Amino acid sequence: MRAPAEIGMRLEEVDTPALIVDLEPFERNLQRLRDAVAGRARVRAHAKTHKCAEIARRQVAAGAVGVCCQKVSEAEAMVAGGIGDVLVSNEVVGAPKLARLAQLARRARLGVCVDDAGNVAALEAACAAAGSSLDVYVEVDVGARRCGVAPGAPALELAKAIARCEHLAFSGLQAYHGAAQHVRAATERRAAIAQAAAAVRETRARIEAAGIACARVTGAGSGSFMFEIESGAYDEIQPGSYVFMDADYARNEWQAPLPRFEHALFVLATVMSRPVPERAVVDAGLKASSVDSGLPLVWQREGVRCVRVSDEHGVLEVAAGAASPALGEKLLLVPGHCDPTVNLYEHYVCVRSGRVEALWSIDARGALA
Amino acid sequence: MRAPAEIGMRLEEVDTPALIVDLEPFERNLQRLRDAVAGRARVRAHAKTHKCAEIARRQVAAGAVGVCCQKVSEAEAMVAGGIGDVLVSNEVVGAPKLARLAQLARRARLGVCVDDAGNVAALEAACAAAGSSLDVYVEVDVGARRCGVAPGAPALELAKAIARCEHLAFSGLQAYHGAAQHVRAATERRAAIAQAAAAVRETRARIEAAGIACARVTGAGSGSFMFEIESGAYDEIQPGSYVFMDADYARNEWQAPLPRFEHALFVLATVMSRPVPERAVVDAGLKASSVDSGLPLVWQREGVRCVRVSDEHGVLEVAAGAASPALGEKLLLVPGHCDPTVNLYEHYVCVRSGRVEALWSIDARGALA
Repeated sequence: MRAPAEIGMRLEEVDTPALIVDLEPFERNLQRLRDAVAGRARVRAHAKTHKCAEIARRQVAAGAVGVCCQKVSEAEAMVAGGIGDVLVSNEVVGAPKLARLAQLARRARLGVCVDDAGNVAALEAACAAAGSSLDVYVEVDVGARRCGVAPGAPALELAKAIARCEHLAFSGLQAYHGAAQHVRAATERRAAIAQAAAAVRETRARIEAAGIACARVTGAGSGSFMFEIESGAYDEIQPGSYVFMDADYARNEWQAPLPRFEHALFVLATVMSRPVPERAVVDAGLKASSVDSGLPLVWQREGVRCVRVSDEHGVLEVAAGAASPALGEKLLLVPGHCDPTVNLYEHYVCVRSGRVEALWSIDARGALA
Repeated sequence: MRAPAEIGMRLEEVDTPALIVDLEPFERNLQRLRDAVAGRARVRAHAKTHKCAEIARRQVAAGAVGVCCQKVSEAEAMVAGGIGDVLVSNEVVGAPKLARLAQLARRARLGVCVDDAGNVAALEAACAAAGSSLDVYVEVDVGARRCGVAPGAPALELAKAIARCEHLAFSGLQAYHGAAQHVRAATERRAAIAQAAAAVRETRARIEAAGIACARVTGAGSGSFMFEIESGAYDEIQPGSYVFMDADYARNEWQAPLPRFEHALFVLATVMSRPVPERAVVDAGLKASSVDSGLPLVWQREGVRCVRVSDEHGVLEVAAGAASPALGEKLLLVPGHCDPTVNLYEHYVCVRSGRVEALWSIDARGALA
């Protein structure tokens, strides 16, 4: 596939659709997280958002201990890109994937989550075969109603099973409250995390009472991480979207202690049709900007909003009196949801002050397995 | 990226998530379209659905005159894959893309759509520079409210502008009623197409009355193509999704004259968590099956349905008394929308009678520009 831009080009010269990182707000987002956390928790940035080793390296340079991934193939891409500490913040099931995970653990510090005793045994067997070891976290369902065992006794039973394994190190609890991240009101988000923290505290106490060290509780996303830190129940946070800040996250209420992040990820699109004065059509549809969490926002064009998309078209409504987008004009869109949008592209076109400064490979694009 | 499967593997051995084509229903879908059309219109299959030169070649072998694409980069992939007749059923705007389109027209019969006189002039200049020629269709808005000029006089004016160009051949009208494709009731879809056909007929008559030959009217999708054929107003149809038949199209009412197509595209997923009896979680979320047109269907597992997805998880609800999916078990999902789902993968894993027969490259994955 051809490169999407050349270094030194002006933004307006970049062919479309293209995935743009505006480096100045991106760098401020990295710094803002660091300032807000202020060393009160370890930061393990979530690489599922960006799938890019270059960004992961910058997160580590900004203080992160390493990254999380959701898939073994993502973890492989991160280790290949020089990240030495990776947590697969997810269950891994099936012999081929376990064998890859155990192999990868020979090359980097690797962690994984479990919520099933049979899976613990399979992990132990895979690591024994590979001659490697893994950090293993018990995933506790603290409100996401997805994977994870219930807090309390079921988590203790799994911790015991892990502690009995020669090649597995019981490392603590994974306790991510995904459902809380997009609760709009900050007070409600804080309340949801307070409940999660209570469940975590009780579970940790129960495990430690059984004589098993519970080194770490990890979890938290961009919408809530300061609440986890302030709860005192979490040692490590896993924010991902903060680097880019998408349109859906921007609909949250943001207030202290959470810093306000800036939009740093955009889809550059061209106006390809102006059929009637009140409608402009851009060449970026749902194959260019994922709509699972809502339509993209048109960036800094008052009176112009995206009202509909199809596969390759974004339909914009132009309010009476708004500056009218011309045929061929390029517009920036803020994606509704950054993670699946990134997964549609091979490269980030990184821009500073309106000039292309770098192309970064999206190393783990399509890394599903 | 590693190959997703090996030839000869059993389906259950394929690592997940994987994009599966079941070749028997796929081949029946090709034949069913051919039988239904029965030579009453040209078939120009839409390659935006599959993005795969191998499938395009099979469509041509099954009688299609060629394919449509939505993007120049898709057209490049199809021409590279041996397709000699490609219509970009969309407007193409901007000098870099026009130059590529004009270059590509030196290697294959190429068509494009227009809805703007300035764009006609830019196309003519690009073809003059490349020493090539293009078939040009005036796109008429027959109800999609997206691109396209209004029927009647505006279309005639554009046809005149094209006819004056040395390197452009005015070839007829593009008249795709996208909004009609997913109208559930067949009678309402037929009525929408009848309106489109009336607009097309009036526009064609007006152009021909001005002494300009209007060789062809092209349009129609998988949800309506027999109505366009029966209207007598269309010479060429552009169905895409019929090869795969996704969950959203399956919610349409299907009755004669439209044939009933079968599901031939699936996402193979593994049960990665069984936290409680009523919930199973699979390793395929919205990065494995696009949810823009609804959640995937769980295939042939009574009492098990997908109720929620996140990036990398599909949450299934298991009804009381339903056969319970085991941890590690593999399930087939029917994607909500085939086109953007295909765009997430590099390969089709093609299966016949439960064995992998071939891997087909998704040549135009991510071909946005």
